[in-house]
Amino acid sequence: MNERLNKQLQFALAIDKAKNIFRQTHLSDHGRNENDAEHSWHMAIMAYLLKEYSNEPIDISKVMLMCLIHDLVEIYAGDTYAYDEENLKTQKAREDIAKERIFSLLPEDQKKEFIKLFDEFEEYQTAESKFAHAMDNLQPLILNDSNDGGDWRAHQVTAKQIYGRQSKTKLGSEKLFELTDKIIQKNIDSGNIKK
Amino acid sequence: MNERLNKQLQFALAIDKAKNIFRQTHLSDHGRNENDAEHSWHMAIMAYLLKEYSNEPIDISKVMLMCLIHDLVEIYAGDTYAYDEENLKTQKAREDIAKERIFSLLPEDQKKEFIKLFDEFEEYQTAESKFAHAMDNLQPLILNDSNDGGDWRAHQVTAKQIYGRQSKTKLGSEKLFELTDKIIQKNIDSGNIKK
Repeated sequence: MNERLNKQLQFALAIDKAKNIFRQTHLSDHGRNENDAEHSWHMAIMAYLLKEYSNEPIDISKVMLMCLIHDLVEIYAGDTYAYDEENLKTQKAREDIAKERIFSLLPEDQKKEFIKLFDEFEEYQTAESKFAHAMDNLQPLILNDSNDGGDWRAHQVTAKQIYGRQSKTKLGSEKLFELTDKIIQKNIDSGNIKK
Repeated sequence: MNERLNKQLQFALAIDKAKNIFRQTHLSDHGRNENDAEHSWHMAIMAYLLKEYSNEPIDISKVMLMCLIHDLVEIYAGDTYAYDEENLKTQKAREDIAKERIFSLLPEDQKKEFIKLFDEFEEYQTAESKFAHAMDNLQPLILNDSNDGGDWRAHQVTAKQIYGRQSKTKLGSEKLFELTDKIIQKNIDSGNIKK
């Protein structure tokens, strides 16, 4: 087998590990914790499904690919819970090392391409990045809402913390932020989210 | 909330169930059984990663979306193992009913669009469908190969059965079929696949 294809296969096999990186979010119907591969798959379909609500025109193919790969660094860096202040401090440094490690399995041109896409997501500047982030926020929100806010209750998450993250959905989609706001308010009213 | 967005959210929540549809394939490092969401995520990334090996030019965005949604019918129809002759007989009828059920959650225009894409995948005629099927074959093959053929051994799968399915990878990619052939031969030689 040639070296290029061999590298591509090594990468394909390495990313299988994303299926064992578990998040704080639980599946609907009070299911088990969700893993990164499932979360990414769900986000990518939601991006396609909800693309009409993007504030700006987007290249949906790019958004889907961003969604699919945005958490691959966690294979080596682990998942960092959105409201875990301690681990958030070291997240960037851990993920930079992991990024180099996972994408270095690829042929050079694809390594560059995937890192560029990953960085674009992280930098939160382009229309595609903003919409992909809106999905990264909305996907766990609808699961958690369907579970009576179980994850928020377990971690005693406050309205301020949630708005701190979820408000950025506005950058990608004003319309989906309206929805987000309704869901958050409902869960504050019912006591699932602390005031 | 307007009716359209409400339907889209109901669909987004319903497809969460794909994370509980387990396949015969096991994750690498002799892990647990893989589920449909993980399999679909893996296929979509592999499609992008390996697109240069498609026999024909392909719309990669369409291929990725096909990969992401091709197993959604299994939420209601269950997984049918590739070498389970009995269940294969009823697969089409079960999946037709399931297809109508899952995609009917969507607004009418998106229902039509998703069913059209699902049918295109199933009909195996377009370049995109052929390449997506090549991924549907290759993804479990590399996992199973990495696990010393454990799934083939458990089900006593024969070379004839495997070639019956995997030979179709040729329709999407001659190059990836060369690789497939080498992997199958290696596993026949080592006794993982019955002659």
